Amino acid sequence: MVETLSDIGEFGLIERIHKLLQKIGVHTPGVSLEIGDDAASLKPRPGFELLITCDTLIEGRHYLPRHITPVDIGRRAMAINISDIGAMGGKPLCALISLGLQSGTLVADVEDMYRGFVTELNPLGASIVGGNLTKTENTVFIDITMIGEVRKENLMLRSTAQPGDAILVTGYPGQAAAGLNLLQNAKAYKNLHAHPLVKAYNLPAHRALEGQAVARSQKAHAMIDTSDGFLADLGHICQESHVGALLIQENLPISSELKEAAVEMGMDSYQLFLQESDDYELIITCSPKQVLNIRSAIKEISQTPIHEVGRIRDASEGIELMLPDGTKRPISLKGWDHFK
Amino acid sequence: MVETLSDIGEFGLIERIHKLLQKIGVHTPGVSLEIGDDAASLKPRPGFELLITCDTLIEGRHYLPRHITPVDIGRRAMAINISDIGAMGGKPLCALISLGLQSGTLVADVEDMYRGFVTELNPLGASIVGGNLTKTENTVFIDITMIGEVRKENLMLRSTAQPGDAILVTGYPGQAAAGLNLLQNAKAYKNLHAHPLVKAYNLPAHRALEGQAVARSQKAHAMIDTSDGFLADLGHICQESHVGALLIQENLPISSELKEAAVEMGMDSYQLFLQESDDYELIITCSPKQVLNIRSAIKEISQTPIHEVGRIRDASEGIELMLPDGTKRPISLKGWDHFK
Repeated sequence: MVETLSDIGEFGLIERIHKLLQKIGVHTPGVSLEIGDDAASLKPRPGFELLITCDTLIEGRHYLPRHITPVDIGRRAMAINISDIGAMGGKPLCALISLGLQSGTLVADVEDMYRGFVTELNPLGASIVGGNLTKTENTVFIDITMIGEVRKENLMLRSTAQPGDAILVTGYPGQAAAGLNLLQNAKAYKNLHAHPLVKAYNLPAHRALEGQAVARSQKAHAMIDTSDGFLADLGHICQESHVGALLIQENLPISSELKEAAVEMGMDSYQLFLQESDDYELIITCSPKQVLNIRSAIKEISQTPIHEVGRIRDASEGIELMLPDGTKRPISLKGWDHFK
Repeated sequence: MVETLSDIGEFGLIERIHKLLQKIGVHTPGVSLEIGDDAASLKPRPGFELLITCDTLIEGRHYLPRHITPVDIGRRAMAINISDIGAMGGKPLCALISLGLQSGTLVADVEDMYRGFVTELNPLGASIVGGNLTKTENTVFIDITMIGEVRKENLMLRSTAQPGDAILVTGYPGQAAAGLNLLQNAKAYKNLHAHPLVKAYNLPAHRALEGQAVARSQKAHAMIDTSDGFLADLGHICQESHVGALLIQENLPISSELKEAAVEMGMDSYQLFLQESDDYELIITCSPKQVLNIRSAIKEISQTPIHEVGRIRDASEGIELMLPDGTKRPISLKGWDHFK
């Protein structure tokens, strides 16, 4: 029998999830109450601040159900939230999962989604401590609240970039946008699951460990993740820090996959890099003489590539892109805006 | 011009909300970062545990947009989350708001919703520190995560009721169920906004201050809010505490409004009291000799009525209702189950 949520009901589903998590999840030190009371309870560690963030995935909008497995939906939703904690220099501790599901949803698919959550949480020693299940007629959604911790002195902000700072970026932004574009224009019969750009979209790598390493080094000035797209998030840094920026086009890391796909799709790879793209890389600014220290702090814990792509400058100079011929072009701050 | 979300976009809306909150909201001590970074930051107080809960309202399912103003939708959503923190004995500190909205939603309605959130938060010294906005084609939803604090020694659970305990309940459960029933069966022209039972449904009073008072007294054994309905939540206490319960029908507090409406609607008022109903009252269990202490702890801070409605007993005796003629009837644990 293929079980759906209407077969086992809300409380039946909670029990199944609870049992699954006891079997496959880890226990977070400091969490004294998990699922099963009105609220979860957490004993904070002295000397640490708590970080709290939430992010929502809507079916069809933030993932395409035809092109992603329930396990990967769970991984994707969790990685996005982990990324926000990591971008502040924090370590994820625990998550609350709020799901809007349909009566006909398969129990096995929900369990798979939780396997995905746990796949991302376990390596970080973080756990699911509560949540909410509700029925929705149409829109399936996953809203995750993530709690993390950071030593006060390591807290990384977006509002503390300084003119003269080098701008660094991890990984290869733009790949997720290209992957999404491939999926949206794919022929129905085409299985793109294993395409590297589709994987970049479906399963973005968070950089929480890298973010923690940067924060611990205390050598960076500002940090943010690229959840709204590289340019929009650099724009957030500029706006909150009251600074401008100059990007060097030649230095923008465009992966070979992105370059190829852009040609095939008739798109500009730099545009894909700059625009909205769900990559969840880190933008880091630091004094130019600290670039090597930041690089080695990250290198100690991961192979993630880091590229220096420009300089922070005075706000009055705006945000510009320097082309290979040396001319500078103002670029407008555009990113993912849900309602426009 | 009537502004919609598509006119000002996601970032425009975030800015508007941010400004509104700076104007009308309070600042929570210990919160060092609010809206405007990847995560909010909170410095926990030594000796306190943090409580974390989340709850979702779906338009049409958890409120009927035709019968409630945006301000009251905000108040309702917030009160429900405050209730969960209060039921653990905790004080709400800060909230994250995750909204799924349509492009055509009026900006003024969203701002009104935030006014509603703040109406509930300000008296408690709690604030909105972050959130997420996302576009949905169909289902409008409000998912709130609430963080609270409680001294470790005052933490109230549902799993610690003891056989012999008195069962107390605040207020008049069942009123919200009756109010919802009135709305669902109302003629289109009928304005029921001011009906006391409709108000009980639309704007349930949370009992967070009462819950904190009970917790501080350290005289109670177990506590829960009646978010799933009186019987279902008493059932949660019984299940988690491994106990049974005997309820005295004559002692169940049925408000005169509920009694009248039940007759008009041809429904059983006791059934309305016991079944799923969005009242957010507190069920408290304590040693019979502590009942007066609990009463006076609550009386010191509020006029909320408290009734003693039965006794906790051994699990083997199950959950029964004693009728006025002395006969006992087993009652089944039913409450709000979203998927059945």
